[in-house]
Amino acid sequence: MNQDYIIPDNWSIIEEGFEPERVCSSESLFSIGNGAMGQRANFEEYYSGNTFQGSYIAGVYYPDKTKVGWWKNGYPEYFAKVLNAPNWIGINVKVNGEMLDLNTCTSVTEFRRELNMKEGWHNRTFKATMPNGIELKVDALRFLSLQEDEAGAIKYSVTLLNSDAEVTLIPYVDAGIENKDTNWEEKFWEPLAVNENGVRGFVTARTLKTKYTACTFMSNSITVDGEVKELTPVAEATKDLLSHTYTTSVAKGSTVSIYKFAGYVTSMNHEVEKLEEAANAVLDTVTTLGFDGLLQTQKDAWAKVWEMADITIDGDVKAQQGIRFNIFQLNQTYTGADDRLNIGPKGFTGEKYGGSTYWDTEAYCIPFYMATKDENVARSLLKYRYNQLDKAIENAGKLGFTNGAALYPMVTMNGEECHNEWEITFEEIHRNGAIAFAIFNYVRYTGDYSYVPEMGLEVLIAIARFWHQRATFSTNRNKYVILGVTGPNEYENNVNNNFYTNYLAQWCINYAAENVAKIKEEYGDDYARIMEKVALTDAEISEWKKVADNMYFPYSEEHNVFLQQDGFLDKELITVADLDKSQRPINQKWSWDRILRSPYIKQADTLQGFYFFEDQFSKEDLKRHFDFYEPFTVHESSLSPCVHSIQAAVLDRMEQAYTFYLRTSRLDLDDYNKEVHEGLHITSMAGTWMSVVEGFGGMRVKDGMLSFEPKIPAQWNGYTFKVNFRNHVLKVNVTQGGTTITVDGDQDLTILLNGEKATAKAALKTI
Amino acid sequence: MNQDYIIPDNWSIIEEGFEPERVCSSESLFSIGNGAMGQRANFEEYYSGNTFQGSYIAGVYYPDKTKVGWWKNGYPEYFAKVLNAPNWIGINVKVNGEMLDLNTCTSVTEFRRELNMKEGWHNRTFKATMPNGIELKVDALRFLSLQEDEAGAIKYSVTLLNSDAEVTLIPYVDAGIENKDTNWEEKFWEPLAVNENGVRGFVTARTLKTKYTACTFMSNSITVDGEVKELTPVAEATKDLLSHTYTTSVAKGSTVSIYKFAGYVTSMNHEVEKLEEAANAVLDTVTTLGFDGLLQTQKDAWAKVWEMADITIDGDVKAQQGIRFNIFQLNQTYTGADDRLNIGPKGFTGEKYGGSTYWDTEAYCIPFYMATKDENVARSLLKYRYNQLDKAIENAGKLGFTNGAALYPMVTMNGEECHNEWEITFEEIHRNGAIAFAIFNYVRYTGDYSYVPEMGLEVLIAIARFWHQRATFSTNRNKYVILGVTGPNEYENNVNNNFYTNYLAQWCINYAAENVAKIKEEYGDDYARIMEKVALTDAEISEWKKVADNMYFPYSEEHNVFLQQDGFLDKELITVADLDKSQRPINQKWSWDRILRSPYIKQADTLQGFYFFEDQFSKEDLKRHFDFYEPFTVHESSLSPCVHSIQAAVLDRMEQAYTFYLRTSRLDLDDYNKEVHEGLHITSMAGTWMSVVEGFGGMRVKDGMLSFEPKIPAQWNGYTFKVNFRNHVLKVNVTQGGTTITVDGDQDLTILLNGEKATAKAALKTI
Repeated sequence: MNQDYIIPDNWSIIEEGFEPERVCSSESLFSIGNGAMGQRANFEEYYSGNTFQGSYIAGVYYPDKTKVGWWKNGYPEYFAKVLNAPNWIGINVKVNGEMLDLNTCTSVTEFRRELNMKEGWHNRTFKATMPNGIELKVDALRFLSLQEDEAGAIKYSVTLLNSDAEVTLIPYVDAGIENKDTNWEEKFWEPLAVNENGVRGFVTARTLKTKYTACTFMSNSITVDGEVKELTPVAEATKDLLSHTYTTSVAKGSTVSIYKFAGYVTSMNHEVEKLEEAANAVLDTVTTLGFDGLLQTQKDAWAKVWEMADITIDGDVKAQQGIRFNIFQLNQTYTGADDRLNIGPKGFTGEKYGGSTYWDTEAYCIPFYMATKDENVARSLLKYRYNQLDKAIENAGKLGFTNGAALYPMVTMNGEECHNEWEITFEEIHRNGAIAFAIFNYVRYTGDYSYVPEMGLEVLIAIARFWHQRATFSTNRNKYVILGVTGPNEYENNVNNNFYTNYLAQWCINYAAENVAKIKEEYGDDYARIMEKVALTDAEISEWKKVADNMYFPYSEEHNVFLQQDGFLDKELITVADLDKSQRPINQKWSWDRILRSPYIKQADTLQGFYFFEDQFSKEDLKRHFDFYEPFTVHESSLSPCVHSIQAAVLDRMEQAYTFYLRTSRLDLDDYNKEVHEGLHITSMAGTWMSVVEGFGGMRVKDGMLSFEPKIPAQWNGYTFKVNFRNHVLKVNVTQGGTTITVDGDQDLTILLNGEKATAKAALKTI
Repeated sequence: MNQDYIIPDNWSIIEEGFEPERVCSSESLFSIGNGAMGQRANFEEYYSGNTFQGSYIAGVYYPDKTKVGWWKNGYPEYFAKVLNAPNWIGINVKVNGEMLDLNTCTSVTEFRRELNMKEGWHNRTFKATMPNGIELKVDALRFLSLQEDEAGAIKYSVTLLNSDAEVTLIPYVDAGIENKDTNWEEKFWEPLAVNENGVRGFVTARTLKTKYTACTFMSNSITVDGEVKELTPVAEATKDLLSHTYTTSVAKGSTVSIYKFAGYVTSMNHEVEKLEEAANAVLDTVTTLGFDGLLQTQKDAWAKVWEMADITIDGDVKAQQGIRFNIFQLNQTYTGADDRLNIGPKGFTGEKYGGSTYWDTEAYCIPFYMATKDENVARSLLKYRYNQLDKAIENAGKLGFTNGAALYPMVTMNGEECHNEWEITFEEIHRNGAIAFAIFNYVRYTGDYSYVPEMGLEVLIAIARFWHQRATFSTNRNKYVILGVTGPNEYENNVNNNFYTNYLAQWCINYAAENVAKIKEEYGDDYARIMEKVALTDAEISEWKKVADNMYFPYSEEHNVFLQQDGFLDKELITVADLDKSQRPINQKWSWDRILRSPYIKQADTLQGFYFFEDQFSKEDLKRHFDFYEPFTVHESSLSPCVHSIQAAVLDRMEQAYTFYLRTSRLDLDDYNKEVHEGLHITSMAGTWMSVVEGFGGMRVKDGMLSFEPKIPAQWNGYTFKVNFRNHVLKVNVTQGGTTITVDGDQDLTILLNGEKATAKAALKTI
């Protein structure tokens, strides 16, 4: 744990006191988003201190050129970077001509931030004394509307505390922004037009190369002590910025407020020529509703989200706050409303990881969205990959694969590979397996097999073809081997026979072959259509099976475990517990070569396989592998503790499960990995959800039936969660005394509770 | 072999006929240089066809920022790139106002280039018909002066063949040049001043970041039919270019010639404020000598080089041309005159490899310079590394090594690492061993032990410390292992227990320990001084020895060979002979991941160890390893065939040795690796020299005595070479009938000839 300034609260994230060195961290933690756009918790008013400005529009990116010393064949030409979008929140404040800047105020007191997760808004209040002696109070409330997802709203109030003064409020929209991660001080937005119309203003700009056009708009109104003040703004425009200056005399004790509606309309959803028109339409809608009206729709929309997705924890405020923070951020990032979008590892909270789609979606996020939303949302995430199958085949082709083999990109915005380090792009091929696994997982959970004949089978065939070609025969071992890969543990690169990868490869081939047979049998028309397209023969399937049936898995007789990769036992096997704390996190302390030859595991790797394929191993197997690998795991990936938490719970190690749970659920709030200032770990938040529902709740799908083996950490009085299973909404309530499972409405549902059949309407059992 | 247009000739490289698609290749092959600067064989006159413009100043570079998707700790911040320097050769030609451009002429005949290696000049002649119907003949002779190494000279003559015409000659100097390899269209030279003074002109410019200032200067004179024509040039200047325009009427059959003296003076050798003054001084010297006078000094200087370095081959013109081309280019690249300089893999012929110093210098070049120059030249190359020891210690420190351990950079301009791919920079650590080996090799050859107490021992200790810390103990193997390295075969990355690396590491520790003991014994004062500095204890040496004595070497019982690395036998062991030719070169046809998991060896790796440490293995050992590894070697590094040629000769496989010899000596002339247009493979040219002297000549140093086991390929009548050994110059003449070894002057020298003692003055023995 690296920080603990967030005040525990069941429904809100709260910070009290102004500490400049916490600004970047809080900017991440208090981020807001609505699936279509996101905003770090930057101050509205000017701030000269250290800050990381970030506004993001879903799907808008820039292809940075790949630069390497020695170009290798097949390198992707571009690396997609998320772009900092124009600033829509800016409101500069001057009092008696002096700029309000928290960095130069002589005192700042009663500084408080609240991110209200129940209702979906962010509020910041403080008192400050300016260098000119003016004392004032600021109250700034803002939100990004879930209902009108092109709009945000801000109410920014200034109260004068010690004298009358002239207050100047300068709201602006600004496309002259820079990326934090830029190496070359380039700008990525080309300004096109700056216009204004009364109290409305518009800045239109276009991204370089990718040519996304965005009109950033605003409309402002002023009140003094609640009375509307009809002021005519003084407009100032540059090539990429428009500001409106409102000046008014304010008496001591009085409050001047500005209401700012603002946001983006982009060429992803509108004709380029009609962007200002679209912006006006959004402004018409939100001004008609008014600030309070729009805020009410926000509260209603979030209430609806929580109705299905909430998890309550009784008796442990920090744990409660953690899980709600995770659920809240996931819903801020992805709503399922637009099937061109996906879930970037940092969501809308930072620039790292290029804002693109990783295997995180399939491995971690799909279970969350399956269980807390309509199943179409998960189906839409699967379809995203089906839509990009041609590009995945093209991508494999660039690496020399043939016959319709597909390698999905490691990182993508539009189906093309847009990461560019060979040890990841070319070698972290296990991602292909997670995409197949997600199809299996979706069918298992939803019972909706129709996706497979409609779309999934083509994906499965292309992936099986990849694994068949990627394995090579080792005469030495008389087995098929998979050489030169990087597993989920990215602290090993270019290793041979990564257990997880080999296991997935075998499974993918078998699963594809099974489904080909099933569809041939049961979906004759689909089978004919697909075979026409992919030209798959029985002989080819036999070739696949030869690889799957003779796959090599490294194993240590001495330790009685599968080895993470061929060379694992050659390492200096010093456990994390014996590693000096000053060396952690190793990715910030050690050089890459030292990390690579160390035994330290960034995230569940062999254990990820045991998580996916739990049914294929005994509890005893799990225990041995967990005991062997856990001690070397540094959990420097956010995707790691959740899997370990679930497995610790399976092994009845509730203390350990609880510790991992806290680590995953409060990863960002407590900044375990010393990097929260860069943004939040959005995709791993779905893993936190899994550690409650699958870990503590012990939820599984077995033979088409939902099963639970609920457990409860000693620290908790009880917890509840809901899951949407095959059109039944189950509410699971676990207490120290027992478990109640109810089904919404009047349906009946037979489930397995601790191995025994029960009816879910009122399942109750002592643990 | 990819091309064969170079006309065989004993002393010259000759091309006949104008083929636009050969232009870039010839620009490399006909490059000229004088150790201080170099020039690709670009045309003087304007050319609108495909060309790769390149002028280079030794030591002038630019630090390109490293850009990666995922920054790893310890990454070098910069990648040094060689900079294309201002153009000094340009002479545009207009006839009746129309620009001469070989790309637009309606006919080009009798086109001929000659690079005369004996005398060190380049000549190009052709006849052309211009679009306006003018027929003319051009004769352009140029050289970079060895004597005045800041100056080049050009004589460019135009003869009108079919009519009188107005001829305009426009010599210029131009700092507005670009790099071929730039990704972002940046310029790297900032223009400072453009001045002229009569027939002289000066353009001063400064490199960005590194702030090297160079004044590019010229002075021109015109003759018609040999008579000086006093023309006043019309000057035209931009911010980075100065041109002088000379216009004159020329009669049909007459010849107008321009003599252009030009070159660079830079801030590396002069005060920035006095660069024009320095340029004037150079121009004074060369204009006093005149073109013919300066050309005579050139012929004399090259005669002196050849007197010592020449190798003659009788009965095989192509082989003769090849070896002289190699010796010529090595001498164009590095003369030993400036100990701040070193030998870049492409010399002054291209931009690739950043123009920096690699391990090539120690592993390949030092033997050539030791034997063909005064021993101070080799000593100066060793000293270059001693001077950079502190930076090598700093570099190791960045990777977490302590206690004065040094890791020399993989690529450097000034002692800092300036390459930036982790699999090379962090892992190709065997370079450290080559640097220690070069000290051993120097002492062995020259008998000059004084270098070790003076400088070498500190380097050896720092390197031993590195290896001691870099090895780790494997409980599994009960041995020390070296994990995560890249060997000389860069077609494997991040492998464990690379035989060559482990062997070198063991050797380095032993050699350092031996020399510590010897210096303690024999050089008490030096010992005290060094120990004061490095604080080495006997206990530490014991720790080193523990690693060396228990080093692990992967071995295959089945094949009875050391394995290149732990995982080698898991690969699909298909020999190069069985690989479809369409797949070659694999580095241009295959993706990186496919190369990495293939068994194909880029360059001698295990065999490089057998080359360095020949005495420690039997001929039988060598044979087994050669037979095992040679079939998988694709020789896609220029540094590969020479080692294989030497070893084939040792194994009495003269046909194979001869084939490899041709491949190394004519690598660029015949463009075996399809990349000659990018520049020449300068450092490997020293390997070519080794394959004659050490391979065919069988020269070794044994127990302080020079030994020879001369062999001769069936294709040759005879060959001779000279070596400078401990102040004796031996001339070795091998014919099908026997070997004569003579010593220059009256000295006597006892040598070993085919294992028997002989006096070198007139050793003769039948092979």
